[in-house]
Amino acid sequence: MTLSVINAGRGAASASDEERWARLAWSRLAEPQTEEVTAWLRRHGPVEALARLRAGSLDPTGRYDQRLESLDIDSARRSLDRLEVRVVIPGDDDWPEGVEQLANPPICLYVRGRGGLGLVEGGVAVVGSRAATPYGLTIATELGEGLAARGIGVVSGAAFGIDAAAHRGALAAGGPTVSVLARGLDRAYPAAHDGLLRDIAEHGAVVSELPLGWAPFRHRFLARNRLIAAMTAGTVVVEAGLRSGSLNTARTAAALGRHVAAVPGPVTSVQSAGCHELIRETGASLVTDTAEVVDLVGRLSFDAAAPARAPSSAEAELDPVAHAVWSAIPLRRGADLAALQRLTAVDTPTLLSVLGRLGAVGLVRRDQDRWRKVLPD
Amino acid sequence: MTLSVINAGRGAASASDEERWARLAWSRLAEPQTEEVTAWLRRHGPVEALARLRAGSLDPTGRYDQRLESLDIDSARRSLDRLEVRVVIPGDDDWPEGVEQLANPPICLYVRGRGGLGLVEGGVAVVGSRAATPYGLTIATELGEGLAARGIGVVSGAAFGIDAAAHRGALAAGGPTVSVLARGLDRAYPAAHDGLLRDIAEHGAVVSELPLGWAPFRHRFLARNRLIAAMTAGTVVVEAGLRSGSLNTARTAAALGRHVAAVPGPVTSVQSAGCHELIRETGASLVTDTAEVVDLVGRLSFDAAAPARAPSSAEAELDPVAHAVWSAIPLRRGADLAALQRLTAVDTPTLLSVLGRLGAVGLVRRDQDRWRKVLPD
Repeated sequence: MTLSVINAGRGAASASDEERWARLAWSRLAEPQTEEVTAWLRRHGPVEALARLRAGSLDPTGRYDQRLESLDIDSARRSLDRLEVRVVIPGDDDWPEGVEQLANPPICLYVRGRGGLGLVEGGVAVVGSRAATPYGLTIATELGEGLAARGIGVVSGAAFGIDAAAHRGALAAGGPTVSVLARGLDRAYPAAHDGLLRDIAEHGAVVSELPLGWAPFRHRFLARNRLIAAMTAGTVVVEAGLRSGSLNTARTAAALGRHVAAVPGPVTSVQSAGCHELIRETGASLVTDTAEVVDLVGRLSFDAAAPARAPSSAEAELDPVAHAVWSAIPLRRGADLAALQRLTAVDTPTLLSVLGRLGAVGLVRRDQDRWRKVLPD
Repeated sequence: MTLSVINAGRGAASASDEERWARLAWSRLAEPQTEEVTAWLRRHGPVEALARLRAGSLDPTGRYDQRLESLDIDSARRSLDRLEVRVVIPGDDDWPEGVEQLANPPICLYVRGRGGLGLVEGGVAVVGSRAATPYGLTIATELGEGLAARGIGVVSGAAFGIDAAAHRGALAAGGPTVSVLARGLDRAYPAAHDGLLRDIAEHGAVVSELPLGWAPFRHRFLARNRLIAAMTAGTVVVEAGLRSGSLNTARTAAALGRHVAAVPGPVTSVQSAGCHELIRETGASLVTDTAEVVDLVGRLSFDAAAPARAPSSAEAELDPVAHAVWSAIPLRRGADLAALQRLTAVDTPTLLSVLGRLGAVGLVRRDQDRWRKVLPD
């Protein structure tokens, strides 16, 4: 079969192709979050459920008949191959386990990009208003850049404003970023972000639960937001008016037990009002920089952010690599060499040399196999 | 005796003059927060303790002898009368009961001003950085004005920056404001705020625990900050760098079980870093406007701030008096006429007329003897 070079099964960690095409079929038959479909897939599995639907023994109402008749799996697969879009389903290596916590998980996920979906594991959603201010755009870019520089996937929705700034920040760091769209992957949305989405696919992934050709409707944005919340370890809202959809993402994240944080801003800015409401009313964490976000989402299980403090002079004089290493050392527990490598992506000889220098100027100390920050009193 | 027209006892609710002059003497003998003096006053009372000190039976070290020899109570009382400074002590009507919670309460309080010290009961401390930004000054002025307009005493330290802005906002509303100084009341501190302090005395009070002539030293600022925290129902920090003394006021307020709140600002502003740290690390409440502060300090025991919401058109069309009345109605419980009068300082006929109009446009409803807000869904 010449079909599906892109979508061929990939060894032990891939789910069966039979199930893959059954899920592709189901994703073309039903809207996301259709409860009866969720129930059928759970009860019978997608292959058996599809067989029963075709046999007329599953749905007495006949409401899927029309879409079932026009369903052309082979044609759909050819389009996916042409656009280099993979179909990722439960059981695949890079299926994001977090989405299984949703009342109605996605039936499958359409993915384009070199990075693949594995990037979202431990990733952080950076979301916010389309009508962002220069302040919000600056902060979103810095957070995207800072997270990506630490190897943490930056997940967002590619919308105008905060979303795009977060993606661009991550791209600037050459780091992983994943965009979740509210339409099929045949077109960019918004269209003006066609180039941005290409760059994201180059360095990460563009994802949707919607089949090719499906357009963005209001309820599909809400469905998309739940995916962003569920895929990630935490959601940070950078700027949001009181009716921003990003508050919806934050609420879903909180309901799923994910970390929720918001960036404060001037109380005179309507674009920060939603952030302040999140902190006041829902107990979202107030975060002011990347380090606080990293500590919040518990990377390497560190349990506290470094308290804000006035910069020390020794710290201010470090070169960029040394500063990055110093910044990456978690406050309370320190880190061992392997952890520091993961956090900094600095090679071992350089890392050891930098740690030696930091030790010499009294900024770190070695404690058996761990390095710890020495903080001013 | 022609002395002390200002400081004559004022009937049943005033403490005895004998105790008053003994406390005045003690305040001139010891620095604020001297633990052994606190203990002596508690054990013997100020009159007996002073007699024992004079008899040489209280303090074997003799460390108070020099000040005791130069002590001239009559001269001190003449200066106080000339400057119209009262000595307020425990048992007086307007002694702020909150200060008794301190490990070392003030021995007495020197007070100048028409308003008297009773204003601080249920009052709110609005404090912050000397090096405030235009943003912080604007917010502090608005909070001072908003609180005073509701009849809530605005307590601060008359320093440059946030303190002065809060006082000025309160004065602009013609409302009560109290300034607590870190020096004796014979001079303005800072000197540039001489006019401001006169205005504060005209509409409220200027207070110190330090005798006339005593200069502001560092530890006296810290002592002053504890008074601001202890006198008030809550402390709001508007802007604070990471080493601002206002954080010290906030910590004292928290330790005394007072409400502590902070105003967020841009994360790029060092003058908001202390506020963000308070919210992040100590659980201070994030507040964005006067209504949130009022609800926080529990005036009339209201227990929740109105959730932030997009402005409704009916509300936006109200005249200033109607808007003030509408804003003053607590969200959950509403308020009766007496409470609304206290909150708004609007006379009864006007208040009833305004409530009638608000009812007619559907913004309030009457529920037996209470008026409640009708909120948009």
